[in-house]
Amino acid sequence: MTSSPETTSTIMDHLLNRLHSLGVRHLFGMAGDYNLAVLDRVLAHPGVDWIGAASELGAAYAADGYGRTRGFGALLTTFGVGELSAINGVAGSYAERVPVLHIAVGPTQATERAGLLVHHTMADGDFDRFARAHRHVVCADAVLRPDNAVAEIDRVLTTCLRESRPGYVRLPRDVALGPASPHVQPLPPDEPTVAQDSVEAFRAAARARLAAADKVAVLADFLVDRFKARTELASLLAAGSFPHATLATGKTVVDESSPHFLGVYGGAMSEPPVRAAIDGADLLIRAGVLLTDLTTGKFTHRFDPEEGIDLGITVAKVDGTAFPDVPLATALVALTELVGDRPPAPEAPAGPACRPLDSLAHLVSDASAKVKESATALTRELCPPRFLPLTQSYLWEAVGSAVQPGHTVIADDGTCLLGIIPRHFPSGARFIGQPLWASIGYSLPALLGAQLADPSRRGLLLIGDGAAQLTVQELGTIGRHRLNPIVVLVDNDGYTIERITHGLRAEYNEIANWRWSQIPAALGVPNPLVLSARTPAALDRALSEAVATTDRLVLIEAFTGKYDVPPALKNLAINRPDRARWVA
Amino acid sequence: MTSSPETTSTIMDHLLNRLHSLGVRHLFGMAGDYNLAVLDRVLAHPGVDWIGAASELGAAYAADGYGRTRGFGALLTTFGVGELSAINGVAGSYAERVPVLHIAVGPTQATERAGLLVHHTMADGDFDRFARAHRHVVCADAVLRPDNAVAEIDRVLTTCLRESRPGYVRLPRDVALGPASPHVQPLPPDEPTVAQDSVEAFRAAARARLAAADKVAVLADFLVDRFKARTELASLLAAGSFPHATLATGKTVVDESSPHFLGVYGGAMSEPPVRAAIDGADLLIRAGVLLTDLTTGKFTHRFDPEEGIDLGITVAKVDGTAFPDVPLATALVALTELVGDRPPAPEAPAGPACRPLDSLAHLVSDASAKVKESATALTRELCPPRFLPLTQSYLWEAVGSAVQPGHTVIADDGTCLLGIIPRHFPSGARFIGQPLWASIGYSLPALLGAQLADPSRRGLLLIGDGAAQLTVQELGTIGRHRLNPIVVLVDNDGYTIERITHGLRAEYNEIANWRWSQIPAALGVPNPLVLSARTPAALDRALSEAVATTDRLVLIEAFTGKYDVPPALKNLAINRPDRARWVA
Repeated sequence: MTSSPETTSTIMDHLLNRLHSLGVRHLFGMAGDYNLAVLDRVLAHPGVDWIGAASELGAAYAADGYGRTRGFGALLTTFGVGELSAINGVAGSYAERVPVLHIAVGPTQATERAGLLVHHTMADGDFDRFARAHRHVVCADAVLRPDNAVAEIDRVLTTCLRESRPGYVRLPRDVALGPASPHVQPLPPDEPTVAQDSVEAFRAAARARLAAADKVAVLADFLVDRFKARTELASLLAAGSFPHATLATGKTVVDESSPHFLGVYGGAMSEPPVRAAIDGADLLIRAGVLLTDLTTGKFTHRFDPEEGIDLGITVAKVDGTAFPDVPLATALVALTELVGDRPPAPEAPAGPACRPLDSLAHLVSDASAKVKESATALTRELCPPRFLPLTQSYLWEAVGSAVQPGHTVIADDGTCLLGIIPRHFPSGARFIGQPLWASIGYSLPALLGAQLADPSRRGLLLIGDGAAQLTVQELGTIGRHRLNPIVVLVDNDGYTIERITHGLRAEYNEIANWRWSQIPAALGVPNPLVLSARTPAALDRALSEAVATTDRLVLIEAFTGKYDVPPALKNLAINRPDRARWVA
Repeated sequence: MTSSPETTSTIMDHLLNRLHSLGVRHLFGMAGDYNLAVLDRVLAHPGVDWIGAASELGAAYAADGYGRTRGFGALLTTFGVGELSAINGVAGSYAERVPVLHIAVGPTQATERAGLLVHHTMADGDFDRFARAHRHVVCADAVLRPDNAVAEIDRVLTTCLRESRPGYVRLPRDVALGPASPHVQPLPPDEPTVAQDSVEAFRAAARARLAAADKVAVLADFLVDRFKARTELASLLAAGSFPHATLATGKTVVDESSPHFLGVYGGAMSEPPVRAAIDGADLLIRAGVLLTDLTTGKFTHRFDPEEGIDLGITVAKVDGTAFPDVPLATALVALTELVGDRPPAPEAPAGPACRPLDSLAHLVSDASAKVKESATALTRELCPPRFLPLTQSYLWEAVGSAVQPGHTVIADDGTCLLGIIPRHFPSGARFIGQPLWASIGYSLPALLGAQLADPSRRGLLLIGDGAAQLTVQELGTIGRHRLNPIVVLVDNDGYTIERITHGLRAEYNEIANWRWSQIPAALGVPNPLVLSARTPAALDRALSEAVATTDRLVLIEAFTGKYDVPPALKNLAINRPDRARWVA
């Protein structure tokens, strides 16, 4: 993280250099009359490309997907209209702890001082309203002026890095284009405070706790990724051979091909062996875990969050006793040293990647166990499930099996996310989802960001028709940049996740009936491969062709029933009928 | 405005009854897990229909278009993700003074009290962040609780009516579904304070000012519409036969077929006769005028805003002397009484509706006057302009001529708005634009709102390809409700308004190249009529067919040059070269 060597000439150049030093190679956003001259500086920058999106919300989601992949993302919008259109995306980065800088370029300081009634304002001379609105969804914000810009940029960026959250700068156009000192120091290093005595005390407490435990399990979550402790976690898991799981927010924070990987834990939503191992552990080590409603099957976890070893961002706890200034990575290293000499744990049961098909069994899922059993047997004999209508069960099994080591799987919230999370991914595959902020439509622009952030990886987008309607325009942006993702569009005629929450047949869960197969071409995607799957057999063929066709965007329109849901939701309904309604 | 007769049973029913009493018959928004049970109350309401949009921003724009047409609009979103996605649309309603209620339905009070880490929050137990963010863009806001809901709803709604601006309520789901008193009084009447002595003093000052003036002109703007003084303005104009104009924000606030209507005034952007009459008046009466950059050709008006008679929302001024508590309508009535006996003014010169074609003249617009003249003469002889490539000049002339008395013309900001505003509309035609907030993409969802608000009128949408990409999904919503608007999609390969502002050939003004002719069918619009126009002749045919085809949605894709602009921008460049760049 050093300052780039270009001569710094304007504040905007300096800001771009700073972003470049954080790994940013693409800046997302939209042109607007207040920012055009500033965009000239972006075009002139040798190391940062401008990616014009089709909407500011799309740009914000793309910057988030980019930040998750490269460690930092950035978007630039115009004053008022642009920045407010992006704010939901920025808020999502806050909730899910993605460091992103939002640069809102506005009128000149002369316009401000004169209080001119210019467009994109409330015509009241107040130029700070939208900065004030942003203050509720970012960890640091600033109004940049010639005399504070360099210092404030660094303050905002270092806060973003320290908290792994978005920041916001309001940047008057003339300030952006004003001169900056050509000699700037690199950003100060971003190292958390470590209290050695606290680490020693933690180590002693943890040693005692480990010694007393027979069945140890590890539950990891997304803060391990955000606070850069993946390597340390991997070392702990290797040293202890512990059975381990992640929450949905943390999927792929561990290598899912490990024989000790249980799967994704989600309280009553979990596959039964995952639940048994996590809830039944004598000692549960939690690394970077945040327990939220959608990641715990609506708080149906059975372990006590006050017990066991809990490694937070900067505080480690043993049975509720807090050890401050023991950052996540430090605590993981300390635990690894402690567990090195334990005997290896037995291998975890095989994950659900190769489960038998259950299409017909699902079709009669409301019937008694006996009827179900004979129906299944009959089906297998008379009618291979591959030719039955496609079900969510089959869909996620097949998609899970199609995931390649070089894929970044991005799933929209709802049935797609719940469907894919139980599948074990091959080593190297990455996952992006948003189970906490849970803003539908997020995943499509996040794909744009993730794939630009690492062109060596192919995006595999899983999105429902309802969600895709919110941000479909960025499919055109993806096409414009000739990216080659696979898009699995689950067409089930509306908001199925909401249908099973409330209003099964209510009009408000219906949507306009789009012809998805026509969408890529209409949005200018060059030479798209569009496939359709109404049966398991057709889905298998489509997935094979999609994986093999790496030079084009591939859209698979997968049709499932309006009221069909993934197994995780069935688990929730079976295990905790009182919690079967998704939201209480 | 009386309370509807339905029995009030829940707070949500009460709120819907209140909205119904304000003329609301459609509630825009999107389903989300926190609001589903509340939407059941909407479906159950006999007088308010649910209109599910494809994005929350679209819902907010639709509610704004609805509010402009019926006097009040409303949208309902889900907590966090939904409400923040809508906030730019709500902010636009604030800037342009449209009364709209934003209802954000969130988690139960029990969830709040327990501080649960639920989705659509920052997982920090703070449930008020998004209400605080909204506070910067609404005129009144409230967090509804069982004991304050009825009173707070009325406070927010009456403030919205009084200020003609949006309000916001955060509504926990259990509060919405809780009981409300079945007997509620009608909303108190919304009457501004009138100070009779102030009115008399204003009348005396205005009488003296009128007596001393030879050339009197009237400039009217959108506050006449928002503060319900259209009738009073019409009476003044009829009584005084004054030459008059509106600003772009106020287009169609007067009957444009009047012989005394000059056109739309916009400083140096104006057609020359409009400018001469307004800037050259001895006495300029301004009714509900707000002078902003885009409506004054970037402040190139030549009249002194401190002189003349200026009628504001509640304060009237004569040569800078303020008369408080003289509301707009009251002041207009007082003036009408004063001017009744003046001799009628001569008729205004004919507007630009029937100007000769100038397609080729435009093509050589950079040449000398002499070359231009001969080129034009030659063209007329050899090549009828109808067969030349389509120009912006021809486009807006033809579209202006196609406007029918029953049309609501909705133009997106940029070349479409600047192109259409100089055209004189027939009596009865209405105009919706957003020249102050100027959020591109606004007009497409606003069309949805406007046409549902008054199904007797047909929408005529004028939108560029760059703008339409932001909100295209609502074309599917328009199709789902089988509305029959005419959509003129100006395809000029990007942000031409920005190109002529800055970065004529810069990459940031380019967009993905969509196939617009395929879009309506892809978005499920039933049986759309799609026409294409690359020449004046083709445009003429397409417009005739569109006007005649009233049972379907008609999309006309009109192709114009990347660097071609409407005459208003040429006026600005010719009259004030220093202001030719649209934003300073």
